[in-house]
Amino acid sequence: MNDNFTDEEKKGFYKAIYSRRDVRSHFTSEPISDNTLTKILHAAHHAPSVGFSQPWNFVLIKDNNTKKIIKESFQIEHRHASELVDEKRKSDYLSFKLEGIMESPINICVTYDPTKFGPFVIGRTSIPEAGMYSVCCAIQNLWLAARTEGIGLGWVSILSNDVLKRQLGLPEHVIPVAYLCLGHVSNFETKPDLERAGWLPRLELKDVVYYEKWEQKEDSNWKKIEQLIKTNLDTLK
Amino acid sequence: MNDNFTDEEKKGFYKAIYSRRDVRSHFTSEPISDNTLTKILHAAHHAPSVGFSQPWNFVLIKDNNTKKIIKESFQIEHRHASELVDEKRKSDYLSFKLEGIMESPINICVTYDPTKFGPFVIGRTSIPEAGMYSVCCAIQNLWLAARTEGIGLGWVSILSNDVLKRQLGLPEHVIPVAYLCLGHVSNFETKPDLERAGWLPRLELKDVVYYEKWEQKEDSNWKKIEQLIKTNLDTLK
Repeated sequence: MNDNFTDEEKKGFYKAIYSRRDVRSHFTSEPISDNTLTKILHAAHHAPSVGFSQPWNFVLIKDNNTKKIIKESFQIEHRHASELVDEKRKSDYLSFKLEGIMESPINICVTYDPTKFGPFVIGRTSIPEAGMYSVCCAIQNLWLAARTEGIGLGWVSILSNDVLKRQLGLPEHVIPVAYLCLGHVSNFETKPDLERAGWLPRLELKDVVYYEKWEQKEDSNWKKIEQLIKTNLDTLK
Repeated sequence: MNDNFTDEEKKGFYKAIYSRRDVRSHFTSEPISDNTLTKILHAAHHAPSVGFSQPWNFVLIKDNNTKKIIKESFQIEHRHASELVDEKRKSDYLSFKLEGIMESPINICVTYDPTKFGPFVIGRTSIPEAGMYSVCCAIQNLWLAARTEGIGLGWVSILSNDVLKRQLGLPEHVIPVAYLCLGHVSNFETKPDLERAGWLPRLELKDVVYYEKWEQKEDSNWKKIEQLIKTNLDTLK
């Protein structure tokens, strides 16, 4: 494998980054092939991990009984959440489709096991959360690989982890990090659902970049990039 | 942008996934161009985020004084960590290069701000950690984009977050998630450093996949994929 990326290879990579969506609708009945699902899991397993601890597991789910129990948990948690929304935004909130548990053929629970390879993990001694961060990197690999294979993926975080742990038989020390719904879709939206609906705006890159210190938006050593970040970035896609 | 990926586009994407490394050596003196750094940050900013909250910030660092202070923090934490390693593995542990803070031209601290867009975030009501998970997805986007642009990246998690917060002036509620070191490199290793050194083995995919329930390695509904996952997966790369 040559170290450098050709323009074509870069194009493929950035297409995955910019066309990936959080998918809750448009699932079709076409099953995910075993070959495709294996490729996606393989990409996830090649994420970075602190101290090479590979602390993730992937529980593959298509059992309808499990899906129903998770869907019920979503409904309870979703109702609780709706009580927290401002009154004037509540009808908008309730109009959003926030999960595709039953419609997607395959659900995957991605878990974090902090005991894998024993208590000492290189790089996890000062910041124990680093193990959890590795699992999230694997989830992002999985998500991007799914997009590349034409598979829609939705992350459902409105559910009770206690219900999930009980249903999947997770040991006490294992943490469910993500509950993902995967399937072929009729199309991918060009923008995130909540951006299209006007719920929140896309921040500009200049709003999230600081120089040397928190909230420092200017610095004499970073003049050129400041200008670039402020100008039209979509040409870089 | 056509929805489907061509074989060429897939090839570019998977090359990023499989050739990405955690880099601590081989940094060269070639500066990162502003255009390249902007592309990498732009890819990071297009990560998924719970409720479209985009809760990340990127503090760009090239100030040598900051780098020195972080390096000193690494040295202190690294010494503490070495006291936790088994006696017989200690010399191996001490031989590993675990950071490239001073050698890399640019360091980036990626932070999580749970207050962005106010207290109510869709999808963060049942699992508050979901905000942090979004930041990790942005870090993985950043890492993969860096690799695509030929930039090496090393994540340093052996340091004190208190020192880091003080040095960068982070407010109390903002959490530093990652401290990253970026630069051009003379080459990328073909395997992770800790795998090459024999510190820990690469797990097989079959070791991290379960069916329907925790630790369930067989299930009548998953027979075909079980076989595929057990066989030669490197052909899928």
